[in-house]
Amino acid sequence: MIVEERLRAMGVGLPPPLVVPSGARLPFAPVRIVGDRAIVSGHGPQNADGSSAGPYGKVGAQVSVEEAYGAARGTALSILGDLSRALGDLDRITAWVRVFGMVASAPGFDRQPAVINGFSDLILEAFGSEVGAHARSAVGMAELPFGLPVEIEAEVVFAP
Amino acid sequence: MIVEERLRAMGVGLPPPLVVPSGARLPFAPVRIVGDRAIVSGHGPQNADGSSAGPYGKVGAQVSVEEAYGAARGTALSILGDLSRALGDLDRITAWVRVFGMVASAPGFDRQPAVINGFSDLILEAFGSEVGAHARSAVGMAELPFGLPVEIEAEVVFAP
Amino acid sequence: MIVEERLRAMGVGLPPPLVVPSGARLPFAPVRIVGDRAIVSGHGPQNADGSSAGPYGKVGAQVSVEEAYGAARGTALSILGDLSRALGDLDRITAWVRVFGMVASAPGFDRQPAVINGFSDLILEAFGSEVGAHARSAVGMAELPFGLPVEIEAEVVFAP
Repeated sequence: MIVEERLRAMGVGLPPPLVVPSGARLPFAPVRIVGDRAIVSGHGPQNADGSSAGPYGKVGAQVSVEEAYGAARGTALSILGDLSRALGDLDRITAWVRVFGMVASAPGFDRQPAVINGFSDLILEAFGSEVGAHARSAVGMAELPFGLPVEIEAEVVFAP
Repeated sequence: MIVEERLRAMGVGLPPPLVVPSGARLPFAPVRIVGDRAIVSGHGPQNADGSSAGPYGKVGAQVSVEEAYGAARGTALSILGDLSRALGDLDRITAWVRVFGMVASAPGFDRQPAVINGFSDLILEAFGSEVGAHARSAVGMAELPFGLPVEIEAEVVFAP
Repeated sequence: MIVEERLRAMGVGLPPPLVVPSGARLPFAPVRIVGDRAIVSGHGPQNADGSSAGPYGKVGAQVSVEEAYGAARGTALSILGDLSRALGDLDRITAWVRVFGMVASAPGFDRQPAVINGFSDLILEAFGSEVGAHARSAVGMAELPFGLPVEIEAEVVFAP
């Protein structure tokens, strides 16, 4: 449990499964396992009780770069929570593969990489530079579900 | 041909290859096979003659959520048509892997998951919850080609 | 070095690693290798000295389709430069897999495929239609980092 110990030393915790509003449904898997690959659905940040966390709005308008960096960092924790439940132990992850970072962007906002660094910095701190290295895009979306400022999907590979 | 029988029982048919306007060209493959993976290019809905199907416009403005749900369902059929031709039999698909659902979104429209459910619901009905399970993102694009309201790309794995 | 010879015969060269502005940092890998897969981060075009190349702005407004086609072609060269450094020889690539072409789009601009053809055409010319074939999406983004009109991420598989 090296990664989870490191997260505790960093003072961060992993949220429980996403709590969706009554009546909502998720006809897809938060994490899909095929062979040694774990493909991760688009995630946003969560509160400690599992509910979706704010802030909400467009980065560059209602949401600042600093707040959005925090949302991307929180999204990393949401994803690690689901990966931990899917794999049993985050130490099974042998390589981060791909990170697709989506930022709901106000017109003219073009600092998406500075936002998604909140995700990459946490992953590299928790997994180290060899396992944590990943290909990445950080791009500006017109809209994201429920007014999320950040949504991230990812892929990792893991040991059997 | 279990999946194709199930589709017939659901009353839906698979369209022929996409008919593109005279002069247009597609310098890419609708489905790319590498090893046991089939990676599916971005698709939209088609008419029974293979041509691109409406409605066209942004969801939340010219196109309603209900119409866009139908477009996402139609996109599933377009993709199944191309997968059927690429693999010979849809029963070879052992797992849906990743679904990336893109919704051309009017300003303020944030119900992309309700739209892409049109895709996920059909896949789960046709393949069942074990094979049909998939990781998914449902996100809001500024624009999509030719005014499409929905475009979806995907990946499946299949048996040799 | 068949592919690199073909590129030379086409009169194009591969740029050196991306030169980022002083103080900027890239907490991710331009290319991530896992097994026989090389996953490529979002790239834009570069100048011969490695710096980011213009034009900048939205396609359909400040940037024309023809200029954006050129930016997509330049992006292919940027990606080939990084793949060449990661793999040692571009001839190791046995199949292009997935190309995700993102076009920063002015309102109403819906000819993203005509832009991303700049990428696909170069890849098919350099690698031929069997190795170069790829699944593709070409879609319209609200914003891209640093005002880029085109950003492309990709995946290839390669021989050991």
